[in-house]
Amino acid sequence: MSFAPFDWIDDEARRRAAAGLVRTLRPRPAETELLDLASNDYLGLSRHPEVTAAAAGAARRWGAGATGSRLVTGSTTLHAELERELAEFCGFEAALVLSSGYAANLAALTALSGHGSLIVSDAGNHASIVDGCRLSRAATAVVPHAQPEAVRKALHAHGGRALAVTDSVFSVDGDAAPLTELAAACRAEGAALLVDDAHGLGVLGEGGRGALAAVGLAGGEGIVATLTLSKSLGSQGGAVLGPARVIDHLVNTARTFIFDTGLAPAAAGGALGALGLLRREPERAGRARAVATALYARLTAAGLTAARPDAAVVAVRAPSADTAVRWAADCRTAGIAVGCFRPPSVPDGISRLRLTARADLTPEQVSAAVATIVRTAPEGASAQPG
Amino acid sequence: MSFAPFDWIDDEARRRAAAGLVRTLRPRPAETELLDLASNDYLGLSRHPEVTAAAAGAARRWGAGATGSRLVTGSTTLHAELERELAEFCGFEAALVLSSGYAANLAALTALSGHGSLIVSDAGNHASIVDGCRLSRAATAVVPHAQPEAVRKALHAHGGRALAVTDSVFSVDGDAAPLTELAAACRAEGAALLVDDAHGLGVLGEGGRGALAAVGLAGGEGIVATLTLSKSLGSQGGAVLGPARVIDHLVNTARTFIFDTGLAPAAAGGALGALGLLRREPERAGRARAVATALYARLTAAGLTAARPDAAVVAVRAPSADTAVRWAADCRTAGIAVGCFRPPSVPDGISRLRLTARADLTPEQVSAAVATIVRTAPEGASAQPG
Ligand SMILES: Cc1ncc(COP(=O)(O)O)c(C=O)c1O
Ligand SMILES: Cc1ncc(COP(=O)(O)O)c(C=O)c1O
Repeated sequence: MSFAPFDWIDDEARRRAAAGLVRTLRPRPAETELLDLASNDYLGLSRHPEVTAAAAGAARRWGAGATGSRLVTGSTTLHAELERELAEFCGFEAALVLSSGYAANLAALTALSGHGSLIVSDAGNHASIVDGCRLSRAATAVVPHAQPEAVRKALHAHGGRALAVTDSVFSVDGDAAPLTELAAACRAEGAALLVDDAHGLGVLGEGGRGALAAVGLAGGEGIVATLTLSKSLGSQGGAVLGPARVIDHLVNTARTFIFDTGLAPAAAGGALGALGLLRREPERAGRARAVATALYARLTAAGLTAARPDAAVVAVRAPSADTAVRWAADCRTAGIAVGCFRPPSVPDGISRLRLTARADLTPEQVSAAVATIVRTAPEGASAQPG
Repeated sequence: MSFAPFDWIDDEARRRAAAGLVRTLRPRPAETELLDLASNDYLGLSRHPEVTAAAAGAARRWGAGATGSRLVTGSTTLHAELERELAEFCGFEAALVLSSGYAANLAALTALSGHGSLIVSDAGNHASIVDGCRLSRAATAVVPHAQPEAVRKALHAHGGRALAVTDSVFSVDGDAAPLTELAAACRAEGAALLVDDAHGLGVLGEGGRGALAAVGLAGGEGIVATLTLSKSLGSQGGAVLGPARVIDHLVNTARTFIFDTGLAPAAAGGALGALGLLRREPERAGRARAVATALYARLTAAGLTAARPDAAVVAVRAPSADTAVRWAADCRTAGIAVGCFRPPSVPDGISRLRLTARADLTPEQVSAAVATIVRTAPEGASAQPG
């Protein structure tokens, strides 16, 4: 018998190819003429000279890496400053910075649950939340999307220690979670609420202070937020925000914090630079929302079907996975980069173009994007004759 | 009833305090007089001007963040170049860069196992491997530390698709895994072998090409390696190395790759800079090993008990958790930063000082470190009268 422990991989690759579901990496150059409506750089800060200078300066001053776990040599006063700033900006008592938003969700979910406890998770939650539930030793109840009453029922049926978890803005359709109702349900049942504000920070709330600040829940007794530094803040990394005792508990028990190298100084510095900018130019948040509203209004006026955006993500319905892929490719050929979500990355089997409403898009760029998306729309994409 | 969903956290905090096991963050300033024997910056590259310049330059040229998943906007030609370099340097067909070594282990373990398959994992493996096993849908057999025959038996008993996984160098004691014997066991049983070379890259093998290159296993048919960019390469991030079909499979199926923002350009640039330096100055790897050997020889000659180092980690036995903490604190007061491992971070309940043999330590620094560690040793640390 020949030694071929990976032959099964070829079978899976063939199945993917037959289904038209092959993913390939397409590295981009540093400079491109493409208009970006595909990234999560909502405020256009990732390449802002002040942000890149802050990142570069931190690398020079602190080194290219943190050199160890945050509990050994990996904590710098730069990390501490970023934690203070994040907590202050978003309205929480304390914050903890991790190497990614993914790690932040794994940390919060595993450290705040445990044997005998329950996690109630929205069916539309991000993959990192799903993995956090799996990694925890808690029982998980997956409830239908955006139904606070279902959350309350699941919590009530359990009784003991429990945590409900939701994205603040769902990454596929850009719809907002019913946070006020969810918090009420949790409060009624004595449960904590964990909100992943990856797509809310920088976009929602006054000056971009996030989805929880927007509804007056930031800093609440049973409220914990996770963030990513990799979207509106244009950098890399993640954070958990909450009461100081919750943050202390994570420092002592969260495996993806304790056994991971600290966030690179450049990423911490870049995020700090972006936060500073956002404080000085709070109007950026509103601009991202306004661009989203404009995109939505003009695309639907042209007959396309889109979800009304609650933040800076606009999802446009495609007739099928194949046409969605071709549509995105046609946009790209015409100079507009858009995202394309299709099974298995969509909860309902419906493929979409996913547009990011960057705060720094000019009216001309918005018009150009709309014209291209409408012109390249596949047959069946319009609800009404275009 | 008052609403206090986190009161249980205070109980746990009290228990930790009573047991003397409270962990606290101690942020360090940018410049310090402390001599670092605690970080994982084995080659002293994290603050090398060439490496920090590469990191800073990448932030300026590419932006502070990757702006999206590697499958959307997050892949740059810088990532592609780093992947080519890592694969070439370590002797593998292909490589995939992720946001951390933790994420790399989660990716490899979940994507290369699955329902009905078996993962055989060394009892001393790193937390990220343990979590990867938990996240996978495979059955996991934990086998006694460094026993290839136990691995073979576990694989044999299973029969179907299987993967054995091991650290190349165990982070607590610095001992090397029996890779040749493990590979033979896997080959005999038709299983794949996944080796986490976090502490081998840059230290073991010719010019630091890693533990697998050192024993002629790099690039083998059933061999996959995970790396971190955060230790010898002085940056942040992780990678999976293996046959091209394995890397393609990860691109298509690994959740911590697909649903995570790409590694920040500064971190990719820093790691590339470090790799370039290591190519030009291959003697750095040997120097790290020589420093480790010197530390071991001189500490044991002074009567302390240490594990013979296979790479650049030297573990010195302490009589108890309390004395270990005090010992590390006394070293720090005397200007030497050392690591301190104690329950629950040690597999056997034995507390240790953990010393990192940095390649750039001078003979004078090694002497100073040894003198301090010996002078501050608690009673009971010496096997023989000091
Ligand atoms: C809702 C949500 N949570 C968490 C993450 C993970 O954050 P990061 O990419 O910083 O790991 C993402 C996207 O990447 C996300 O969309
Ligand atoms: C053996 C081992 N594997 C993986 C990791 C995780 O790598 P990273 O810190 O880059 O996430 C570490 C340490 O952090 C480690 O010691």
